[in-house]
Amino acid sequence: MAKDLTINYEGTPCYQIHFRSNFEDLLTCFNTDIKSKYDNICIVTDSNVASLFLKEVLDIFKNTGSNVTSFSFPAGEENKNLSTVNMLYEHLILKKFTRNSLLVALGGGVVGDLTGFAAATFLRGIDFIQIPTTLLSQVDSSVGGKTGVDFNKYKNMVGAFYMPKMVYMNLSVLNHLDADNFACGMGEVIKSALIADKELYDWLKVNSKSLSARETEALEHTVYNCCKIKGHVVEIDPKEKGIRAYLNYGHTLGHAIEKLSNFNLGHGQCVAIGMVCAGFLSAKLGNISREEHEDIINLLNEYNLPTSVSGLKAEDILEASKSDKKMVNNQIKFTILKAIGEAGSYIDFSDEDLLESIEQVLN
Amino acid sequence: MAKDLTINYEGTPCYQIHFRSNFEDLLTCFNTDIKSKYDNICIVTDSNVASLFLKEVLDIFKNTGSNVTSFSFPAGEENKNLSTVNMLYEHLILKKFTRNSLLVALGGGVVGDLTGFAAATFLRGIDFIQIPTTLLSQVDSSVGGKTGVDFNKYKNMVGAFYMPKMVYMNLSVLNHLDADNFACGMGEVIKSALIADKELYDWLKVNSKSLSARETEALEHTVYNCCKIKGHVVEIDPKEKGIRAYLNYGHTLGHAIEKLSNFNLGHGQCVAIGMVCAGFLSAKLGNISREEHEDIINLLNEYNLPTSVSGLKAEDILEASKSDKKMVNNQIKFTILKAIGEAGSYIDFSDEDLLESIEQVLN
Repeated sequence: MAKDLTINYEGTPCYQIHFRSNFEDLLTCFNTDIKSKYDNICIVTDSNVASLFLKEVLDIFKNTGSNVTSFSFPAGEENKNLSTVNMLYEHLILKKFTRNSLLVALGGGVVGDLTGFAAATFLRGIDFIQIPTTLLSQVDSSVGGKTGVDFNKYKNMVGAFYMPKMVYMNLSVLNHLDADNFACGMGEVIKSALIADKELYDWLKVNSKSLSARETEALEHTVYNCCKIKGHVVEIDPKEKGIRAYLNYGHTLGHAIEKLSNFNLGHGQCVAIGMVCAGFLSAKLGNISREEHEDIINLLNEYNLPTSVSGLKAEDILEASKSDKKMVNNQIKFTILKAIGEAGSYIDFSDEDLLESIEQVLN
Repeated sequence: MAKDLTINYEGTPCYQIHFRSNFEDLLTCFNTDIKSKYDNICIVTDSNVASLFLKEVLDIFKNTGSNVTSFSFPAGEENKNLSTVNMLYEHLILKKFTRNSLLVALGGGVVGDLTGFAAATFLRGIDFIQIPTTLLSQVDSSVGGKTGVDFNKYKNMVGAFYMPKMVYMNLSVLNHLDADNFACGMGEVIKSALIADKELYDWLKVNSKSLSARETEALEHTVYNCCKIKGHVVEIDPKEKGIRAYLNYGHTLGHAIEKLSNFNLGHGQCVAIGMVCAGFLSAKLGNISREEHEDIINLLNEYNLPTSVSGLKAEDILEASKSDKKMVNNQIKFTILKAIGEAGSYIDFSDEDLLESIEQVLN
């Protein structure tokens, strides 16, 4: 296995995603005379990933003879903030990083988003590459150039659109994920299939065993196709003016649930619950049948994803989702399914409709 | 008078700069149905400018029927930092700003740079317009999309390239500037002429009386031509990979002097001193004559700019300039004059050459 995918930006090739089963091809794929191009390299990671893969990646870059340093911060969404970014800036200043320096994001979505934002803003922008190490970041956050950090309690309130120079995916790292983390990524995988790829959706139904066993071929098929879907959407709509919002399928209510649960539920888990609500509304519009809606719920369960939540009130979820970003004139612009494998948007849901959909997932 | 100038970015028109003598045409020039396009508008300014122009500008926007708010912070370079940006983010969150909101930078370079950076990063980028109120910001920082803030003691260490939707220059506001501030802007004006426009240089020599008296026609001629020069340079080299560095003429040593004087000397004043050094080196290379070098010094003095500094050591200035950003392999990439009105770059100056040039400006 050794697939590659080119991501375009404004009609021209922007960077490549490389799918591999180890770290061996990292430098070959980057295809850059690193030592002469970059005066300094910093590998940014978190405490979880550092103990697993930092040494191996550090050694690969050190072997080029470059000045390589690393910056590790405590794992967790609660550290995806400007104070961690400030510590990273301080590290880069101390190590005399310049505009000709490189950041390497080694980790999940938190590491990738934060490192990308630091790269976008340090000296008004320096190069960075991504090595995503979770299923969620491989299929989602490492594609499309969204970078950012949380601000106070607000997710991704501060950020930038900024493209990496390369994304390198070593799929074997996914074997280190615990079950919750793997399921979390599957939430976004199923979302990708639902909004854009009926074929992938059907494939996921019949291949749950090999994928859940994290067989390399199954992982590659899944991650590659999800990146292709996301790459296609962000190519058409890089700044989220239109159809990029389809990627938010299940997210409007999902984010609200994530926030109200104080981020105790995983992102993909909340998206799964949000997709049950969105599926209910899609069925209510007659876009998908009741059976198809049930089929989606079964698939989510098959991949160990929750389809309900306890301890929350419908009104609170609705209120929280309204303070989110995807609103038009104080109304939620809701992404729905036009069919299995095809998304659309809809803004006319009444509060009653939305509350009814939320009731479906409350225990 | 009512000139307009289009700034291009990557070959296509990006935004316009409007030169006027009052605020009357502000909305006409913006040419946008503000109320339907923007759900919220925040006018960002500092304590100095707020007392002069905030009410007038606020009223103009309020008359559109939009939600308009203002955010004012204490004037001074020492407040151009991330903690002021954080306070602005908090204000925007409190006022429920969305991706469809607008920031208006009303003030000098500090306000423009900081507001632009907040606009570039809030929700990964929202629209902003600039109303520069100092000569320095009109001829320099409001053109070219550089935004940013200082970090610890490092100038513009954190920032982004981000374009405004419009720049509106009311030249009459320059009558409120004190002599030092006006002279400060003239430092950049003379720099612009030196690197790219011999005609403007000659014009500045014969029109010092009307310009120093801030006659409207003279101001317009000066500011318009400087914006044209800068607009042209940044169009060719938006991300400062090549000739944009010419804009740094006089800045390499000027920044070092600015830093070592703890920002007690104005930016344009330090650039003037830096230009004496750079002029000396340009003459040493034989690019300009000794007489031309003297002529430049006379012109700087004519506009009340310093051409020497006391209390600093040559070695310290050299050292500080080396820790600045414009280095290639630990050597300073120095912008020099190839002739009056034409810049070039040079990297082979020895420390001895640089120290000799610095000695020219030490009292």
